[in-house]
Amino acid sequence: MAYFRIEYYSNALRRETSFEVMIPNDPRPGMPDPSEGRPMRTLFLLHGFTGKAGNYVPPDLPAKYNFAIVMPSAENSFYLNGLSTGHAFQTLVGEELVDYVRKTFRLAVKPEDTCIAGLSMGGFGALHTGLAYPRTFSKIGAMSSAFIVHEVAAMQPGGGNDIANYDFFRECFGEPSQVEASDNNPETLVRKLKAAGEKIPEIYLACGTEDFLIENNREMHRFLEAEGIPHEYHEAPGTHDMVFWAEHIQKIVRWMFE
Amino acid sequence: MAYFRIEYYSNALRRETSFEVMIPNDPRPGMPDPSEGRPMRTLFLLHGFTGKAGNYVPPDLPAKYNFAIVMPSAENSFYLNGLSTGHAFQTLVGEELVDYVRKTFRLAVKPEDTCIAGLSMGGFGALHTGLAYPRTFSKIGAMSSAFIVHEVAAMQPGGGNDIANYDFFRECFGEPSQVEASDNNPETLVRKLKAAGEKIPEIYLACGTEDFLIENNREMHRFLEAEGIPHEYHEAPGTHDMVFWAEHIQKIVRWMFE
Amino acid sequence: MAYFRIEYYSNALRRETSFEVMIPNDPRPGMPDPSEGRPMRTLFLLHGFTGKAGNYVPPDLPAKYNFAIVMPSAENSFYLNGLSTGHAFQTLVGEELVDYVRKTFRLAVKPEDTCIAGLSMGGFGALHTGLAYPRTFSKIGAMSSAFIVHEVAAMQPGGGNDIANYDFFRECFGEPSQVEASDNNPETLVRKLKAAGEKIPEIYLACGTEDFLIENNREMHRFLEAEGIPHEYHEAPGTHDMVFWAEHIQKIVRWMFE
Amino acid sequence: MAYFRIEYYSNALRRETSFEVMIPNDPRPGMPDPSEGRPMRTLFLLHGFTGKAGNYVPPDLPAKYNFAIVMPSAENSFYLNGLSTGHAFQTLVGEELVDYVRKTFRLAVKPEDTCIAGLSMGGFGALHTGLAYPRTFSKIGAMSSAFIVHEVAAMQPGGGNDIANYDFFRECFGEPSQVEASDNNPETLVRKLKAAGEKIPEIYLACGTEDFLIENNREMHRFLEAEGIPHEYHEAPGTHDMVFWAEHIQKIVRWMFE
Repeated sequence: MAYFRIEYYSNALRRETSFEVMIPNDPRPGMPDPSEGRPMRTLFLLHGFTGKAGNYVPPDLPAKYNFAIVMPSAENSFYLNGLSTGHAFQTLVGEELVDYVRKTFRLAVKPEDTCIAGLSMGGFGALHTGLAYPRTFSKIGAMSSAFIVHEVAAMQPGGGNDIANYDFFRECFGEPSQVEASDNNPETLVRKLKAAGEKIPEIYLACGTEDFLIENNREMHRFLEAEGIPHEYHEAPGTHDMVFWAEHIQKIVRWMFE
Repeated sequence: MAYFRIEYYSNALRRETSFEVMIPNDPRPGMPDPSEGRPMRTLFLLHGFTGKAGNYVPPDLPAKYNFAIVMPSAENSFYLNGLSTGHAFQTLVGEELVDYVRKTFRLAVKPEDTCIAGLSMGGFGALHTGLAYPRTFSKIGAMSSAFIVHEVAAMQPGGGNDIANYDFFRECFGEPSQVEASDNNPETLVRKLKAAGEKIPEIYLACGTEDFLIENNREMHRFLEAEGIPHEYHEAPGTHDMVFWAEHIQKIVRWMFE
Repeated sequence: MAYFRIEYYSNALRRETSFEVMIPNDPRPGMPDPSEGRPMRTLFLLHGFTGKAGNYVPPDLPAKYNFAIVMPSAENSFYLNGLSTGHAFQTLVGEELVDYVRKTFRLAVKPEDTCIAGLSMGGFGALHTGLAYPRTFSKIGAMSSAFIVHEVAAMQPGGGNDIANYDFFRECFGEPSQVEASDNNPETLVRKLKAAGEKIPEIYLACGTEDFLIENNREMHRFLEAEGIPHEYHEAPGTHDMVFWAEHIQKIVRWMFE
Repeated sequence: MAYFRIEYYSNALRRETSFEVMIPNDPRPGMPDPSEGRPMRTLFLLHGFTGKAGNYVPPDLPAKYNFAIVMPSAENSFYLNGLSTGHAFQTLVGEELVDYVRKTFRLAVKPEDTCIAGLSMGGFGALHTGLAYPRTFSKIGAMSSAFIVHEVAAMQPGGGNDIANYDFFRECFGEPSQVEASDNNPETLVRKLKAAGEKIPEIYLACGTEDFLIENNREMHRFLEAEGIPHEYHEAPGTHDMVFWAEHIQKIVRWMFE
């Protein structure tokens, strides 16, 4: 599988940055080229808190299901447009990179060929970005997701949590007191899309029953049920680690591309 | 000249990041290895606003003067410790990377063998970081430096400038109303070092007479004169571009290492 | 200018390898995107002996003239198909990479939009590859070219020259006694194209008058004149170094794309 | 675990090349730094035919056992010094890289802290290189090794096998008719070391019972037994794939460093 590291000037970040792409279009001798005859689909794959661009899809699946993987590096941004100039990570992933990848690479451009998935902070990012751009992404996969908006909403100046201080969360999510009503809350986006009669991307949530975020995921599941949004919801034994993610990214990829 | 791209977990940033190093220890046949017999010195080289790790020292000089180049990527941080968790770019460059480079590579570790230089935002960063860690760096080179503390100090909520908004500057520099008195102001550091009788690194400032930052640099020059801090100050025809920097980084490198 | 490092499986080399691409499609704010409205052209840019993929085109020219740069790493192969399995560097550059780049990136695919240039060993490679694939490349730029076929032809087992031994040249060029008549000799390709009535790409040769390869370049110039092949031929003061190449790659790029 | 990609000029290859290093010296908060207090050991890790530098050691083991991984890219060279100038891959791995890594990084330099392992072509390379430099490496791990010297010895001009042609094998191994007696044959090295009374590195061989190379590995095992060389030899169900290697590199690493 061909691997691309790309350095470019990001207008969303106002600076040079990098991202990575994997395209299974370099088959070994005797193997078929999955990119032949049909445009290759794309999976935007989001990393978690403290991470960076990297692949955690099993390496045989992209060729098997004919899709490329686009891996942004979004720092610890929660994939949101923060308050500061150049902190526009929602725009980076949901607009700029989508456009840049499509104008640069010969990949499929239709929403039905464009999916987004992530783990932990990237699970939050996948659901939020997918809902923020429902005409761009048709399917969303979110594992062990950091659905922490309600926790952020309760934060006070000088506060924070074990992960980061109040200033950090305010910078990422905006004023905590306003975050629940804001577009940084995936629930707000769901309600707006429903009200506008917009098509909502298909959603697949998965979380381990021992994960410290299990209650946050159950809450999102109940919210989607209450709103009447069809979605897959899967709990399984496991915790917040690569063992769980290695198994469930496979299931998500099959659900997306099979 | 050997080139290293390093990805590692940064505790200062609370996430995986990267930096670059160049070490002239792979001489072509018939050429001497400058690293033989004496430990190689280090130049921490800082990029400007919108940039990232990259070299702008002429490629023949490191071998000639026996020094390695360490190039952090510090985003648009002004090389300061911002308000948010994980925005500790001063710590990144002045402590974490210095320590990491020294424990990882067989390079010289003494202050007299450790210098720091930069351009524009990186010129500010070089002076500020050098003054914040005067027992780490012995020489500072700052070109076309963004000495903008007094401009930041005057900013009001909702304000900002052509470059970025108020939230951006507050995140980087802290509360604008307090920045002049804070350690984010290089002038504060100079005064504290003087008061404490600490040795101040040697300083070389250069700016083009057509540079939009020329008055800011003249102001810093006058401040250092008024404080009785010996330093080199050079103005020359030129503007805020690579033509000026290519010429003056040569002069700075010779001043540092010849 | 966006920079791509690509790792992929090369069927020509029978192993994983890498190449680099620069595409000026990430303009800074306020600058035009040269890739808009017209497909971007491509320059295959070849390195010299002891080198690897790298750019020596001035960074402002690709955006100005709307072209991407593709930089293969071809080791010390002279861009020829050697005797050994997996030593197919002519195929790598002239077929595989051309195809791979065209199927992967949204770049122009017509011969009139596809050029090739190189320096030293890469100058030989540019002329040879361009002539071997005259329906792929429309323009050839060759600087300070290592036109050494006649020297190789005279080599005997156990011999060689200051650069490499007999086995090396035999591996790259095939049996020395047969190289002049073979397709590894650019002159052979010229004669065959003439005989077949094939269109020959436009050719630009440049060499410094102090270059140790000047006589080889004069000889190629005389050969092309004798064969009635129209071409640009430029001598100028200079030697086998980046000073000469930095100046003349500019002239070649303007000649190709202006 | 910190990851280094290094581009440098290789005198063994007579050109610029690259290699990779992983050093577990960037622990996450709360984790110990294994490099503290004791010098970190090194494992030279060799890739197989068609491959390039890459890690296949489970990512938790280097920190656990305090070792860095050095990953050369040796193309399809069988880690031997070929006939051509610049094809000196034995020298590259066994001398140049060992020296370069030791002079560049603060890692352990003693033989007892220096090991070498590989798979397939890299298994051959590990055994051959380890035996060629018995004062550099103290332990050798070779999985599914391509012990093909006797097959090469039987090759005739115009011949070859499914993998590559005669010229390829001659270039890598030297004249086939002479290879068995040459230092490119690990058996020759064993006999010479025995005769000289030199210490032979400890050896660990592993091969899957379904591997197409199983007989070649059994043959090497019998040879070592016949010569009275103590060694570990392990067969287990499995074939020539990552499933086998992922399991057995763990065992080799534990054997080397526990």
